[in-house]
Amino acid sequence: MSHVVVDQEDVPYVKTSDTKAKLEDAIFQGRIKQAARSCKELNASVHADGLYYLNSSRGVLYQTFCDMTTAGGGWTLVASVHENNMYGKCTLGDRWSNQQGSDPNRPDGEGTWANTVTFGTAESSTSDDYKNPGYYDIAAQDVSVWHVPNNIDLEQWSATSILRYHTENHFLNLYGGNLFYLFKKFPVRFGLGACITDNGPAIPIVYDTGNVDYNKNLYGPKISTPGFIAFRVFNTERAAMALCSGVKPTGCHTEHFCIGGGGHFPEAVPRQCGDFTRWSASKEITEAAVLLFYR
Amino acid sequence: MSHVVVDQEDVPYVKTSDTKAKLEDAIFQGRIKQAARSCKELNASVHADGLYYLNSSRGVLYQTFCDMTTAGGGWTLVASVHENNMYGKCTLGDRWSNQQGSDPNRPDGEGTWANTVTFGTAESSTSDDYKNPGYYDIAAQDVSVWHVPNNIDLEQWSATSILRYHTENHFLNLYGGNLFYLFKKFPVRFGLGACITDNGPAIPIVYDTGNVDYNKNLYGPKISTPGFIAFRVFNTERAAMALCSGVKPTGCHTEHFCIGGGGHFPEAVPRQCGDFTRWSASKEITEAAVLLFYR
Amino acid sequence: MSHVVVDQEDVPYVKTSDTKAKLEDAIFQGRIKQAARSCKELNASVHADGLYYLNSSRGVLYQTFCDMTTAGGGWTLVASVHENNMYGKCTLGDRWSNQQGSDPNRPDGEGTWANTVTFGTAESSTSDDYKNPGYYDIAAQDVSVWHVPNNIDLEQWSATSILRYHTENHFLNLYGGNLFYLFKKFPVRFGLGACITDNGPAIPIVYDTGNVDYNKNLYGPKISTPGFIAFRVFNTERAAMALCSGVKPTGCHTEHFCIGGGGHFPEAVPRQCGDFTRWSASKEITEAAVLLFYR
Repeated sequence: MSHVVVDQEDVPYVKTSDTKAKLEDAIFQGRIKQAARSCKELNASVHADGLYYLNSSRGVLYQTFCDMTTAGGGWTLVASVHENNMYGKCTLGDRWSNQQGSDPNRPDGEGTWANTVTFGTAESSTSDDYKNPGYYDIAAQDVSVWHVPNNIDLEQWSATSILRYHTENHFLNLYGGNLFYLFKKFPVRFGLGACITDNGPAIPIVYDTGNVDYNKNLYGPKISTPGFIAFRVFNTERAAMALCSGVKPTGCHTEHFCIGGGGHFPEAVPRQCGDFTRWSASKEITEAAVLLFYR
Repeated sequence: MSHVVVDQEDVPYVKTSDTKAKLEDAIFQGRIKQAARSCKELNASVHADGLYYLNSSRGVLYQTFCDMTTAGGGWTLVASVHENNMYGKCTLGDRWSNQQGSDPNRPDGEGTWANTVTFGTAESSTSDDYKNPGYYDIAAQDVSVWHVPNNIDLEQWSATSILRYHTENHFLNLYGGNLFYLFKKFPVRFGLGACITDNGPAIPIVYDTGNVDYNKNLYGPKISTPGFIAFRVFNTERAAMALCSGVKPTGCHTEHFCIGGGGHFPEAVPRQCGDFTRWSASKEITEAAVLLFYR
Repeated sequence: MSHVVVDQEDVPYVKTSDTKAKLEDAIFQGRIKQAARSCKELNASVHADGLYYLNSSRGVLYQTFCDMTTAGGGWTLVASVHENNMYGKCTLGDRWSNQQGSDPNRPDGEGTWANTVTFGTAESSTSDDYKNPGYYDIAAQDVSVWHVPNNIDLEQWSATSILRYHTENHFLNLYGGNLFYLFKKFPVRFGLGACITDNGPAIPIVYDTGNVDYNKNLYGPKISTPGFIAFRVFNTERAAMALCSGVKPTGCHTEHFCIGGGGHFPEAVPRQCGDFTRWSASKEITEAAVLLFYR
């Protein structure tokens, strides 16, 4: 069970538990401390999909979407990667790669995958990039991904997704409990490593919408193995990409099906630079936002 | 009367009414559901201008300015269009047109008029663009517009406005209840239609500050009829503009007095591109933010 | 003592005091009015560093970091100036100078130092720019500055700061009570004045981490006097800079050690333009965010 709790002592960041105090006293003291840190925790008492308020370990109150349905529910939306302009190459809106052009002097680009900067809203996460405090705060075990067509309303996300899948092997236990810590271990930085040998983990997935064959078709003919999420991969020119969602690279042309990235993509600069580098993928997949959930 | 209500069942987006439950339980359950969805609703019990918290139908809590005075009060500030750089042509800050240059490949530009992306704050809406969830959430009948000089403090908005006016004929009933739905019907997209024949509705207005003659003088000699708000108009080159506030175009040179737009303005590219295209209008009008209210 | 108070009458912006009413009634009425407007006020009852909710005089609720330790505590974090790209010259992210290139047509640049636009979060203020309503709302007497290495977590800010210092002479009493009003009196505008003669005030500081010698070394050999914060200074070419933190200029090459600015830096355009102009300063100081506190 989750409880509304209020710090009794003057110790920051540490919550006393099992003490339900008056909310007005909490605000009076300048803090709102509520136990629910994730949709998983909330799922003990709440069972409907929708927008809910969560509270980070530092006491930051925020609102996001909970998927209380898929595979038992309890999934927290923590981010979305939305391509606002396939013709823009690392321009404004490419918050998950570089908004200032392809630039070897800025190898980490925006640094979004491994920092605490937040932006956007849950409600508009199919029309804009989104990242909330849960991305770096929640202690999670698995990841779920929804590919939702751009500009779709929240109530229709699940039904209209072209692809939905999740991991089941609790891999985040090995990498610090969420993607923020995973990408601290595997920085999304241009030039840091070489193709295949230095790639991060590739985790098997279970499909909730779609399947392996459909997944493969969406990404076109380039060589990759569907049925996985792969993290922090490099291409031939040592450009770093954050996430190959649905597929594991078997070669070095990762720019065809991976998203997010560091700050520089050397080949045919700046053609490959941007949140969605995969220019040979299908129109369906490039015009869908990638929603990331934790559980 | 508005009430603080909390969902009793586990049904998302649907509020049970007339049940005033403890707020801490609402937060405990991850939701804050408060009945007041608009300043109009709040106006039943509150009668002073100022900042208030509202709650969208999806349970998003936000704060905005209520005009409780004009023509009976109950007007909710939902957006402001602020030109941050008359020398920038579809550059950063042109959120109501295109922030990535004039580009025929991006005919909708930012898409702001018909999506759920939000930005800015009520308090700074004379210094920056503003859009809150009320823009797409509130079920409204009429629109009110204030032209407030840039950087004016909230307390002085009404007194310093160079022009204020509102519609009275409940026209939004015909177009889905707000501008979000109106612009779904009349997309602000380059090339979608031709001048005059494909223009959207032009609605008569009542002046609260200023009058028809003053309005006409502010916009200079170009041909237009004051006393209206016109929506989604095209110019000679098929560039789309969102809102001609105070005037109805009688010709095709709408770039002289209309604001907002799609992503491409062909004539003398990119000279006409931006939130405020109207480069021949008076300095007073181009250096004033356009605040949009619903009731 | 601070109290949760609710407006009894329908008068905006004016709070009745010493009346503790139910929070749900406050939200029911569309307002949350809590007495604590600053960490100084909160410090009467709370003594631990951390994130707290504050409420502006207009009733805007926001969260920021309170330093309850330094020199008696009660310091409110109101802003951070973070350089996201030393290679970008007045590009995206240069919110404290100009994000649209060095441009004499935009002499105030973004205008951030003297407007009510807010951005960022307290938690990410070492990874991004930050400005909250306290910047223009709090009635303060002194300023404290922390130079915290980029991307450091909130819990480690104080311990990892390379330099921390504060004023003690209550100078803000003379300039309107905060930096918003100080910069209204001393606009950060290109061309408004000349080097040295038109510079704003330089206020002596007390060091909390580091000292005069260390401070001097961080800024390199260019002529300046450590032990001060100087406000709104001009360089040889009449470019305006907002804040020389830790040093008082004795000459006209202020671009070497001052931060923030107006919209145009004429020398070798656009080389000097940006939030951090000081290109000859040490790597330690240019790769640290500048956190500004009030008390």
